[in-house]
Amino acid sequence: MKAVRVHSYGKRPSLDDVPEPRVTGPFDVLVQVGAAGLCRTDLHIIEGQWAEKSGVQLPYTIGHENAGWVRAVGSAVTNVAEGDAVILHPLVTCGLCRPCRSGDDVHCENSRFPGIDSDGGMADYLLTSARSVVKLAPGLEPAAVAALADAGLTAYHAVRKAVPLLYPGTTCVVIGAGGLGHIGVQCLIAMTAARVVVVDPNPAARELAQALGAHEVTDRTDDLVDSAHVVLDFVGEQGAEKQGLAMTRRAGSYFVIGYGGSVDIPTIDLISTERNIIGNLVGSYNDLDELMTLAAQGKVTLHTRTYPLAAVNEAMDDLEAGRLQGRGILVP
Amino acid sequence: MKAVRVHSYGKRPSLDDVPEPRVTGPFDVLVQVGAAGLCRTDLHIIEGQWAEKSGVQLPYTIGHENAGWVRAVGSAVTNVAEGDAVILHPLVTCGLCRPCRSGDDVHCENSRFPGIDSDGGMADYLLTSARSVVKLAPGLEPAAVAALADAGLTAYHAVRKAVPLLYPGTTCVVIGAGGLGHIGVQCLIAMTAARVVVVDPNPAARELAQALGAHEVTDRTDDLVDSAHVVLDFVGEQGAEKQGLAMTRRAGSYFVIGYGGSVDIPTIDLISTERNIIGNLVGSYNDLDELMTLAAQGKVTLHTRTYPLAAVNEAMDDLEAGRLQGRGILVP
Amino acid sequence: MKAVRVHSYGKRPSLDDVPEPRVTGPFDVLVQVGAAGLCRTDLHIIEGQWAEKSGVQLPYTIGHENAGWVRAVGSAVTNVAEGDAVILHPLVTCGLCRPCRSGDDVHCENSRFPGIDSDGGMADYLLTSARSVVKLAPGLEPAAVAALADAGLTAYHAVRKAVPLLYPGTTCVVIGAGGLGHIGVQCLIAMTAARVVVVDPNPAARELAQALGAHEVTDRTDDLVDSAHVVLDFVGEQGAEKQGLAMTRRAGSYFVIGYGGSVDIPTIDLISTERNIIGNLVGSYNDLDELMTLAAQGKVTLHTRTYPLAAVNEAMDDLEAGRLQGRGILVP
Amino acid sequence: MKAVRVHSYGKRPSLDDVPEPRVTGPFDVLVQVGAAGLCRTDLHIIEGQWAEKSGVQLPYTIGHENAGWVRAVGSAVTNVAEGDAVILHPLVTCGLCRPCRSGDDVHCENSRFPGIDSDGGMADYLLTSARSVVKLAPGLEPAAVAALADAGLTAYHAVRKAVPLLYPGTTCVVIGAGGLGHIGVQCLIAMTAARVVVVDPNPAARELAQALGAHEVTDRTDDLVDSAHVVLDFVGEQGAEKQGLAMTRRAGSYFVIGYGGSVDIPTIDLISTERNIIGNLVGSYNDLDELMTLAAQGKVTLHTRTYPLAAVNEAMDDLEAGRLQGRGILVP
Repeated sequence: MKAVRVHSYGKRPSLDDVPEPRVTGPFDVLVQVGAAGLCRTDLHIIEGQWAEKSGVQLPYTIGHENAGWVRAVGSAVTNVAEGDAVILHPLVTCGLCRPCRSGDDVHCENSRFPGIDSDGGMADYLLTSARSVVKLAPGLEPAAVAALADAGLTAYHAVRKAVPLLYPGTTCVVIGAGGLGHIGVQCLIAMTAARVVVVDPNPAARELAQALGAHEVTDRTDDLVDSAHVVLDFVGEQGAEKQGLAMTRRAGSYFVIGYGGSVDIPTIDLISTERNIIGNLVGSYNDLDELMTLAAQGKVTLHTRTYPLAAVNEAMDDLEAGRLQGRGILVP
Repeated sequence: MKAVRVHSYGKRPSLDDVPEPRVTGPFDVLVQVGAAGLCRTDLHIIEGQWAEKSGVQLPYTIGHENAGWVRAVGSAVTNVAEGDAVILHPLVTCGLCRPCRSGDDVHCENSRFPGIDSDGGMADYLLTSARSVVKLAPGLEPAAVAALADAGLTAYHAVRKAVPLLYPGTTCVVIGAGGLGHIGVQCLIAMTAARVVVVDPNPAARELAQALGAHEVTDRTDDLVDSAHVVLDFVGEQGAEKQGLAMTRRAGSYFVIGYGGSVDIPTIDLISTERNIIGNLVGSYNDLDELMTLAAQGKVTLHTRTYPLAAVNEAMDDLEAGRLQGRGILVP
Repeated sequence: MKAVRVHSYGKRPSLDDVPEPRVTGPFDVLVQVGAAGLCRTDLHIIEGQWAEKSGVQLPYTIGHENAGWVRAVGSAVTNVAEGDAVILHPLVTCGLCRPCRSGDDVHCENSRFPGIDSDGGMADYLLTSARSVVKLAPGLEPAAVAALADAGLTAYHAVRKAVPLLYPGTTCVVIGAGGLGHIGVQCLIAMTAARVVVVDPNPAARELAQALGAHEVTDRTDDLVDSAHVVLDFVGEQGAEKQGLAMTRRAGSYFVIGYGGSVDIPTIDLISTERNIIGNLVGSYNDLDELMTLAAQGKVTLHTRTYPLAAVNEAMDDLEAGRLQGRGILVP
Repeated sequence: MKAVRVHSYGKRPSLDDVPEPRVTGPFDVLVQVGAAGLCRTDLHIIEGQWAEKSGVQLPYTIGHENAGWVRAVGSAVTNVAEGDAVILHPLVTCGLCRPCRSGDDVHCENSRFPGIDSDGGMADYLLTSARSVVKLAPGLEPAAVAALADAGLTAYHAVRKAVPLLYPGTTCVVIGAGGLGHIGVQCLIAMTAARVVVVDPNPAARELAQALGAHEVTDRTDDLVDSAHVVLDFVGEQGAEKQGLAMTRRAGSYFVIGYGGSVDIPTIDLISTERNIIGNLVGSYNDLDELMTLAAQGKVTLHTRTYPLAAVNEAMDDLEAGRLQGRGILVP
C-alpha cells in the first residue's frame, strides 16, 4: 500500500510502497483510511521537534487525525464490524489502568500515539485497536469528520468540562475562533444557553464565529474585564493568558487550551477572588463519541480542503504558506 | 462597654468606654462577646496596611474572629434566640445577590467585614446579623472555637472542595501544618480516607501533624514529585508555589490557600498534564456550620492561649515576638 | 384597591375593594400587579380542597403566579428598585435556614406561599419580599411571563437537574406536552443536545412539541421501553408512572413531576438495573432567574389568553370547561 | 485440578477432577484460587433458581467471590504479573461499550459472571481477564478479603455514591447491619463525618455496628421519621421499604440495596418532599480497588470461617442451618 513516510528529519516525507498491516491480536482493527487530517504538528515532526519526545524510529508513517472504514477485526472486537465507517481516537490505550477504567483514557499510563510515536494514518490502511474506533452514524463521511479526531476533540473536551458552570445567565468568553475555537463555539451553542463572546483580532474569524452563533464578537478585551464565568483560551500565548485571567470574574474559571505562553499570577490574586485555572488536554474516547453525535446532528461542521495522498507535500506547502483555509485533508 | 479601638495607624489600640450597640433592624443580633481571636491581620491593620483597602474611619473596634452569646434579636430572626452560644461568620452578607442565593455567600456583592471595615468583636458586645451567627452545639464554648471563625474556616473550605477528589487510594499533600494547615489535616482525616502527607520544615509542626493523624510527614518534597492527586498549599509563597505544582500529578489539582508568592507556569505544562490550579477564599456560612459540627464531635480541636481584653497589647507583643504558641484569644 | 377574594368555600370569589398594602419592613417590596396567572389550583382552593392544608383564614386574595412592577421597597432592599419590572417566586422564604443558605430555598423551613396561605396577586397590589422578586430584562412584559412563575418554574427545575445526565447521544423522554411539558421541551432544547422524544395522546400537544423542537413525538410507549437515559414525567398518574419506569434504561433516571398516581416497583427491579426515581418540586429563586434569562433570549415562550381582573369568574369558567387554550392571565 | 461442580439441580455439587484452564488470549489471567466465598446465591443456584436466568450448561463450577494468586498472564496484560495476590471483580467485562468506557463497567453490555453463568472459583484454578483482577496490597491475604468481592463491593458502592450527600451535620440511617450492612457502616465511618444510625432487630448485629463505629443503634424506627439525609436499606423487604422512605427527610435520598419487597409510594409524596429513590447494584472495578485500599488500611474488616474445598457441602449445611457466623470461605 501507499504511505507517507518520514525518512529523515528536515526532509519532506515521501510516498512509499509498504506492506499492508494485518490483524493479529483479538482487539486489532484494520481500517482503510478514508481521510487523514493535516496538522501543524506534522510540520513540526518533519522539522524534528518531536524526535526526542516521541522516540520514534525512522522511517515511519505520519498522520494522527484519521477516519475510514473497518476492513478486518480481531476475535474479541464487539463494538465495530467490517464495513463500518469509523473515526479514530488519537490514542491507543490499555484499558487496564485507573484512568482508562475511569473514562479518563487520555491519561492512560500505557498509551501510544499513532502518527507521532508509531505508524499513523497517511496511508491506505492503518492498524488500530477496538478501543480507538468510534462508529460513524449513517450520513457522516470520513473526509468530513477526520479533523475532529484531534483538534475538534480538544475543543469539545474543554467545552464539555465547562458545561456545568454555564447555566443560563452566564457568560463564556472564547479567545481565538480559529481551528479549535470555531469548533468550541459550535459546541457551546449546542450544549449550553450561555452568552458566548468571541475575542479574535482577525475579522474573518469573528465573522465565522458570529455565523456559528456567537452572541458577541470583538477584538477588544478591555470591556470584558471581570465579565466571564468561564474563559476558554484557545490561544494560550502572546498575552492571551493575561487577558484571559483578567476577563475571568470572581469564582470563575480560566480554561487553558492553547499553549506557548505562561500563566503568571500572584497567589493573592487567585485567592482573593477564588478563581480557578483549568488545564485541558485532548478529549476521551467518550468525548469523541459525543462529538460525533453533534456532527451527525449537524451541530458541528468543519471547513476542509481535500488533497490526494500523493499531494501531501503540496498540502504542507499550502499550510506553511498560509494558503490553506480550513483544515487540509488527505484522501488516499 | 469596653472596646479595643484603633485611633491612629502606627499606634497600639486603646481600651475605650463606648456605648453598647442596640438591636434596631429585624435581622439584627446583639452578641455578648465570649472570645475574640487575635490574628496577624490585626497587627497589619494597626500598621495601616489595610487603611486604603478597607476605607474604615478611625477610631473603630477591631476583632474579626468572634464567638459569644446572643443577648437580643430583631423581629425577623428565626435561627437563634437570646441565650444561644454562637460563632460569627466573618462576613455580614446581603442574602439577596446571586452568590448569597447559591450558598456561596463569601462572594456576596454587598458584604461588610466587621473588625476590618466596621466595628469588630474585641469588645463586650458586637452587633451582627442573623445571617452571620451559627449556633454552637451544647458543650462547645466560645473561647474554644472563636479562632475557627476565620483561620479554621478557610482550611475547612479548601478541604471541603477537595473531598470529591480524595477517594480511597488518593494522596493529599498538605504544605504547611501551622495555624491553618493543622486544621486542614484534621478535616482531611475526618472527611476522607485519603493518604495525608504533610510537608513542613518545622519539626514541631510535623510532630503535631502526625499526632493529628497525618500518615506521613516530611521536610523534603523531592520524593513527592508527581505524587499528589491534590495539594493543599497553606503557604503560597517562598517556593511553596513551585513545589506544590511539582508535587501535583497528571489530572490533579493544586489548591492555593496561603499567599504572598506567585504562580508562574508555562501553559504547555498545564495542558500536557491537564492539571488545575484552584483558588481558595474563606468558607461560606454553611461551611462554618459544618466545621462547628466537626468541633462538636471532637474531630477538630485548636490550641489556644487566653488573655483578658485589657491585655490586648501584651497579646499582640507575644504574637509579634513569636512567644505565642497556638492561637491568642481575648476574653472580655 | 381591587382584589379577587374568597369569602366562602364552594362559592366563586368576588372582586372587593380592600386597602392597599404598605411597605413596613426593611426587606418588603410592594409590587403593582401586572399579571396573575390562573391555575387549576385556584379552582381547587375555591372548592375547599386546600382549606385544611393551608390553614388560611377567609376572606383572602388568591393568585400565586404573579408579575408586575416595583412601586416601593424597604430600607434593606438592594436587588430591585422602584419601577423595575419583576416576576415573583411563588414562595416567600426566610433566608436563614440551611436550605435557604444552600440555594435550595424551595425547602425553606419557614416559608409562606402567597395566594395559597396568605394574600396573593389577583389584586392591584401585592406585598412581597426582596427575596422573592426577580428583575425582568428589558423587553419582557409581566403578562408574557407571569405563568412561568409556578408552572414554568417547575418544568425548568426538573430539566435543570437532568442536564448533567443528558450529554450528546442520550435520549430524554418527556411524558405530557401540556402546560408544564411544553416548557420542559423548550428548556431541554435550549440547554442540552439530547434527543427529545415526547409522548402525548393529544395530537395538538404533539404538534406543538414538534414545533418547539422535539425530535420525535408519539402516542405509543412500546417502542420506547428501556430507551431513555432520563424520563421527565409531567403526568404522574393514570399509568404514566408505569410507562415512565418502563422507558427508563439501565442506570437511568425517572423524574416524577406530575402527580396523582403511585410508583409501585419491586425492589429487585430497581437494584438489578440500578435505576433512580427522582422527585421534583417547584424551582428555586435562582432557577426562576435562569428561566427569565431563557425567556429574555426568546428560548422559552408561552401561549396565553388575557382577561381583565373583573372577569376572573369568566376565566375560571373557561378553564373549567376546557375552553381555555394556553394559560389564562388576569390583568388588573 | 479439583473443582466444586453442579451436575444436576436439586442435588449437592461434587468435588471433581477437571483439567486446569490455560491462558490463550492476550488479556487472560490464570489465578490459583486462594479463597472462594460461600454465598446464599450458591444455595439458590443448586436449587435451580438461576437455571433459566443464567442459561448455564451443566456441569459447571460455582464460586463468585474469589481471590488468589496470579500464575500466568496473556501477552497484553500490564496490570498484574505472576505471583501477585489478587481479588477478582465478580464480572468479566468487555472494556469497549459506553458503560465500560465510563468507569461504570457493572453495566457492561457484554459481560459474563463466572460462578453464575460460566466456571467459577471453587476450584484450584480460575481463568479470568486482566480487566477483573485487582492487585492486593502487601499484607492482605486472599482468605481475608475474598468475601469483599461481591457482598462488600455492593455495600461500598452504595456508600461511595452517598458520600457527596453526607457532609458534616447530616444523618445516614443504615437499615440492617448484617453481611452487607456491617461493611457499609465501616465504609461510612472511613469516608464521611456523618452521624451513622443503625436500625436492626438483632441485638448482636446492633452490638457489632456499635463496635464498628455507629453513633446510634436501635430497633425502632418511629423516632427516626423524616430524620435521614440518606437511608441505606440493606434489607429491601418485609417493611424496610416503607420504613426507609418514612425515615428519609425532605430532599433526601432512599438507597435501595437489599431486595425482595416493593417500593410503593404515591407520586405526590415524592414530589411534595422532592425525595429520591436510588437503585444500587454491585460496585465497579474501581470501587473494588478503592475498597481494597480501605481493607489494606485496616478500615474494613470481615468476620469469616474457613473450610477446605472438600468440605463445601458441610459449609453449605452450616449456612443453610444458620450455624455459620460471619462469611464462609472455601480454601482449596
